[in-house]
Amino acid sequence: MTTLSLIGIGTGNPEHLTLQAIRALNAADLILIPRKGAAKADLAELRRRICDEVLTAPAPRIAEFDLPRRDAAHPDYRAGVEDWHGAIARVWAGAIAAQSPAPGRVALLVWGDPSLYDSTLRIAARLGHAVEVIPGITAIQALTAAHAIPLNRIGAPVTITTGRRLRDHGWPDGVDSLVVMLDGDCAFQTLDPAGIGIWWGAYLGMAEEITEAGPLAEAAPRIIAARAAARARHGWIMDVYILRRGGDLNEEQEVPTQQ
Amino acid sequence: MTTLSLIGIGTGNPEHLTLQAIRALNAADLILIPRKGAAKADLAELRRRICDEVLTAPAPRIAEFDLPRRDAAHPDYRAGVEDWHGAIARVWAGAIAAQSPAPGRVALLVWGDPSLYDSTLRIAARLGHAVEVIPGITAIQALTAAHAIPLNRIGAPVTITTGRRLRDHGWPDGVDSLVVMLDGDCAFQTLDPAGIGIWWGAYLGMAEEITEAGPLAEAAPRIIAARAAARARHGWIMDVYILRRGGDLNEEQEVPTQQ
Repeated sequence: MTTLSLIGIGTGNPEHLTLQAIRALNAADLILIPRKGAAKADLAELRRRICDEVLTAPAPRIAEFDLPRRDAAHPDYRAGVEDWHGAIARVWAGAIAAQSPAPGRVALLVWGDPSLYDSTLRIAARLGHAVEVIPGITAIQALTAAHAIPLNRIGAPVTITTGRRLRDHGWPDGVDSLVVMLDGDCAFQTLDPAGIGIWWGAYLGMAEEITEAGPLAEAAPRIIAARAAARARHGWIMDVYILRRGGDLNEEQEVPTQQ
Repeated sequence: MTTLSLIGIGTGNPEHLTLQAIRALNAADLILIPRKGAAKADLAELRRRICDEVLTAPAPRIAEFDLPRRDAAHPDYRAGVEDWHGAIARVWAGAIAAQSPAPGRVALLVWGDPSLYDSTLRIAARLGHAVEVIPGITAIQALTAAHAIPLNRIGAPVTITTGRRLRDHGWPDGVDSLVVMLDGDCAFQTLDPAGIGIWWGAYLGMAEEITEAGPLAEAAPRIIAARAAARARHGWIMDVYILRRGGDLNEEQEVPTQQ
């Protein structure tokens, strides 16, 4: 009987780790860590660094594996993703089967939180093992913390969406606060910027963290330039932003939730 | 020069604390802890317990204060909230002014994350001090972890909303995944349950944690009964749920976000 422990590690700041995550890492018999391409070497290095910092003797075994590549040219995007998830699941299964004795607890370190725009839960489901999830700090929380802003206005909704949906479908109905993730093309450029504020951040929580904020019309060119420069320098970028429209952009809190 | 450090502490599991939160608590000169009414005594007790567990010598001073009550009968809801925030800000200012020497760093422990349906950032802004935010695990992440489910479907949006809005405005347009918070009245009862799944949890992360999930038509009566019984037993309840409609309710992941 094997349990897969999917452990949210936050967004790159080793101090985003929770005590629960540290305990779960130490409780593992085996930790699986992907090796990545050169451009993402610092992300693989971060996982190793986290293990170095928080694992205590007797430390779990660590097995590195080569992450299969997704066929970005697959004519059916969805089928290409399915194939890729299957390939990753087979690599995990092989790494687990290579261990003797069979590991009871296998840990995977998941960027951010396993619930949010991440494939680890789906891949894990293919192995048929028990799965436990340890929550982690998301890029959204790292963003609101970096700007010291709330996510929502008082009693008002927030929609989390993707750059592709923002570009293809425009601003969604019924919300004035929008979180945009997975946006490689600065989809905010497709909006009429009048009355919209933006709070943007990249490499949130990491030493490389950069942020920009302001009225969209003014901030957009700064963000586009900063993003391109940072991506060129690091070889990769992870960023996220909040858009807000209408009302006082600073006026947005809530009565505590306890009753 | 005083800095207010708003520290997300997660949802009641002391292991939700991040290393960053522990460091920020220990870096404080003064920690402000609200005393609450009897029904919420266990929440105040939890804050004290967290301080007991993670503070190391020389420990910051701790000042407890009586949290002003909101006038729930105020004819203008918004003005009532404003008055209440003002009263809390004055109590904080008084507690800070009572310290000698003046504290450079003042910490407040915030349930969940300071960005999400919480008034602490707004109250802090009234004092005019510098503010820093330490992110914490939200009830949403504790919920998805408890159920080991993703928040979003592949590339699809998610809306976070309130019970009041769900009741008054129905299911929002353009999303199939909905997080409902601040719902004291089980607003899911106002929906046609056909094709909707629900994942519910209360006291998430705490020893008292309870969860329910299933098709809404079947799960709703169980949740209503469990919620009423738990609230009667503990004197208070904090809960949150995810609603999802359409498609395969288990099929909902995402390609990693790095580019």
